[in-house]
Amino acid sequence: MDRMTETKRDTLEGLRKRLATVADLGSANALLAWDQQVYMPKGGVEGRAEGMATLSRLAHEHFVDPETGRLLDAARDLDPETEDGALVRRARRDYERSTRLPSRLVEEMTRAESLAEPAWVEARASSDFSLFAPHLEKILPLQREAAEALGYEDHPYDALLDGYEPGAKKARLEAMFEELKKGIVPMIRRISERGDDGRAAVLRGDFDEAAQEKFGEEVVTAFGYDWDRGRQDRTVHPFCINFGPNDVRITTRFDPEWLSPALFGTMHETGHALYEQGVDPRYARTPLSGGTSMGVHESQSRMWENLVGRSRGFWSHYYPKLQGTFPEPLRDVEPEQFYRAINAVSPSEIRVEADEVTYNLHILLRFELEVALIEGSLAVADLPEAWNAKMEEYLGITPGSYATGVLQDVHWSSGLFGYFPTYTIGNVLSVQFFEEAVKARPEIPEGIQRGEFSALLSWLRENIHRHGSRYLPDEIVERVTGRPLDTAPYLRYLETKFGELYEL
Amino acid sequence: MDRMTETKRDTLEGLRKRLATVADLGSANALLAWDQQVYMPKGGVEGRAEGMATLSRLAHEHFVDPETGRLLDAARDLDPETEDGALVRRARRDYERSTRLPSRLVEEMTRAESLAEPAWVEARASSDFSLFAPHLEKILPLQREAAEALGYEDHPYDALLDGYEPGAKKARLEAMFEELKKGIVPMIRRISERGDDGRAAVLRGDFDEAAQEKFGEEVVTAFGYDWDRGRQDRTVHPFCINFGPNDVRITTRFDPEWLSPALFGTMHETGHALYEQGVDPRYARTPLSGGTSMGVHESQSRMWENLVGRSRGFWSHYYPKLQGTFPEPLRDVEPEQFYRAINAVSPSEIRVEADEVTYNLHILLRFELEVALIEGSLAVADLPEAWNAKMEEYLGITPGSYATGVLQDVHWSSGLFGYFPTYTIGNVLSVQFFEEAVKARPEIPEGIQRGEFSALLSWLRENIHRHGSRYLPDEIVERVTGRPLDTAPYLRYLETKFGELYEL
Repeated sequence: MDRMTETKRDTLEGLRKRLATVADLGSANALLAWDQQVYMPKGGVEGRAEGMATLSRLAHEHFVDPETGRLLDAARDLDPETEDGALVRRARRDYERSTRLPSRLVEEMTRAESLAEPAWVEARASSDFSLFAPHLEKILPLQREAAEALGYEDHPYDALLDGYEPGAKKARLEAMFEELKKGIVPMIRRISERGDDGRAAVLRGDFDEAAQEKFGEEVVTAFGYDWDRGRQDRTVHPFCINFGPNDVRITTRFDPEWLSPALFGTMHETGHALYEQGVDPRYARTPLSGGTSMGVHESQSRMWENLVGRSRGFWSHYYPKLQGTFPEPLRDVEPEQFYRAINAVSPSEIRVEADEVTYNLHILLRFELEVALIEGSLAVADLPEAWNAKMEEYLGITPGSYATGVLQDVHWSSGLFGYFPTYTIGNVLSVQFFEEAVKARPEIPEGIQRGEFSALLSWLRENIHRHGSRYLPDEIVERVTGRPLDTAPYLRYLETKFGELYEL
Repeated sequence: MDRMTETKRDTLEGLRKRLATVADLGSANALLAWDQQVYMPKGGVEGRAEGMATLSRLAHEHFVDPETGRLLDAARDLDPETEDGALVRRARRDYERSTRLPSRLVEEMTRAESLAEPAWVEARASSDFSLFAPHLEKILPLQREAAEALGYEDHPYDALLDGYEPGAKKARLEAMFEELKKGIVPMIRRISERGDDGRAAVLRGDFDEAAQEKFGEEVVTAFGYDWDRGRQDRTVHPFCINFGPNDVRITTRFDPEWLSPALFGTMHETGHALYEQGVDPRYARTPLSGGTSMGVHESQSRMWENLVGRSRGFWSHYYPKLQGTFPEPLRDVEPEQFYRAINAVSPSEIRVEADEVTYNLHILLRFELEVALIEGSLAVADLPEAWNAKMEEYLGITPGSYATGVLQDVHWSSGLFGYFPTYTIGNVLSVQFFEEAVKARPEIPEGIQRGEFSALLSWLRENIHRHGSRYLPDEIVERVTGRPLDTAPYLRYLETKFGELYEL
């Protein structure tokens, strides 16, 4: 081995070691966040905020250290087509974003968010926006400061968006939403004209929590969720979180009088978890571990939740089991009736409970509001009003309370501005990817009808999961489907499925 | 304010900030450890080991940074009688210990222990010492290396001991054990001569786990455990752990066919937790937060477990409630019979289930074995044999298996050499402190008979808890009782209590 190669290997090893330390601090902070949301006693709030701020600061300081830059420079000529090259490219991208954020700002953001989150929980519980407003007032200027520090060409929002969906732009999202609106708004109008026939009512009733949990576990085990590398806990706002590819946890909220939240929530979070559990384990403790973007991540959760979990095929296998689990409330409910119930379209207040058709209008609303908050054209004090006005405009409904309106989502309390649109990107990609999977493995739909998901999972593992963050979102979409993000398959899917369901 | 004072204030502030970062890393690592023992899936083992090693290394590096030394030097003339002075003194003590340990060694120890612990769990489950031996073979040389690096006057063991019980020495412990042996061995002989009358049998039966948990919660709530600043979870080997004074958690092991482990285990861990919850909150994120030593800590857990929880007075109030909780198994058990059962003396295999009289012989055995392992006069391969020989010699019994013998304790897998003797220090101090508490607040025993513990708790808060680590163990013992550690009250207590119980 010549001297040149030897030096390059040392550089890479040094870089990997630094990145592993940063990853370990991130994983520790993720565990602190998990614990905060599932088990931490009330008294821990302040200490946890301090602790998470410290870990964020150390991770940031360690990452933006000039030594990281020196190592990245020394490794810059590696081919990004190779794994090492992809690692260097991704690390450089993160490095450039991070070096623009001063440590002081990172720490202030973490602390503000860590205090805001429990305040949001309380605000939502008492439907009192004034408990949350002062926290949002603290978070927004920090977000704006971050956008300025990160830099952007067209709009400060682009700088924030890029943190969740590398390469995405506000202008491009506006075009995407425009296409979706054109297809979805008339569809909703036609469905709404028929009036609500109450078809979703059968999902309400007395559904024992423990039985819900057991059924959910059975389903996600069949999906391929590996319990030796994960677990499920209860929380207010469900999420999936991981500390490396071998400890990927989901959380669920159970409603003993409503089947939907836990049933589809568990499938959804498992979709995220399967992505993380499927990442090449050699990428652990590097910037290549973990999904490549929130949008691609959401394509996985929505695929398992909607394209699998709300499909007729899936329930042709699972409905008898579900009926066996809940003989009383589902006694007189026919399979087809159940299928229509879980796919009922009805404009409603709560995003996470929205049907597939109205869902993206919830996102559009949030996208527009958070863009306005960031650019300062909307004041925090006017947010609840603006929220209600848009709910009226897009969905024709007025939220009954702040708890079920502007306070329903955890995101803003966590400083996740720029995150919401990735939900719609995920919806669009879920169908674009699924079409491709079925094209490559035509046996997938039949498998789903037998409760057999390995063809789908192995295709996802091979084409998406294992790559982690090796490819940027646009690249993976292009690699897998041969073209960029495309709303056509998604709109076609909605029209076919709901056209049939509502005889449009 | 003159310039001199201003500078000193800056120094202290700088020092506090550094120490807060170190404390935050320690708390994060404590949460990783808690999670590892209560909820982490199997797959997380390796990643967690890496993560904990990284956090330990960073905490160590941050603490031993020359800047810490410079700040400590600049603050060296502060009076240790003041709080700031006490903080500087304690930090300097820790600093001197830590600077002697190379980062590389700290990281290797953490990684080895993190891998050894799950191996120990498996070894114990299958009673297979060979699964654990290779891990112990890795841990021991690291411990020896640490002792050499830390330095000592008489024996390498002293260097390790000092980490748990600042100022303690092997030679002094040998003298303490000698005094105890003189009093205890004849007592056991006289009790054993009577033969086992099976008085403890009533504690076995069908004791519903959920009911055990509820009763335990009621008791420790009455003790004064603050659930807003703590929680209880299940684990294999119970422990108390905290992440600052406002998040102090206990863990419990439940046996559905045996009342003792959870009942007294919960009281025990709560004794630890009350100490931590009682530390002055201004000490949070400094080296003064947390109990001053393992021995003083154990004095608190043993006081609540034994002097309160195994007293006749306590059960005069609580036995009717316990009987109400478990009407079936306790139907024909009289209060006095129950009191005799929970204080039955009988040499047995398991330390954590040992009665108050035999307990210290379990410790003596471990103390002698670990001293021999550290000095190298005992090989790992010979440990099971040596364990069994000493069990025979001191307690007259042969362990039925490695699981209930040499593999029963978690400590060695966690690298806690020098920890065991602090259990006996705790037993001795528990009585020395309790006598003092009753002298100062003569209403304490009557309170206990009414299920009223505030007089005891407030005395402990005032005299011991709130000080955290402000005073060294010897100092707090001297301040509270006017003399050094003294085995006489403890032996007197045992003779009185068990003399009556066994009509000696």
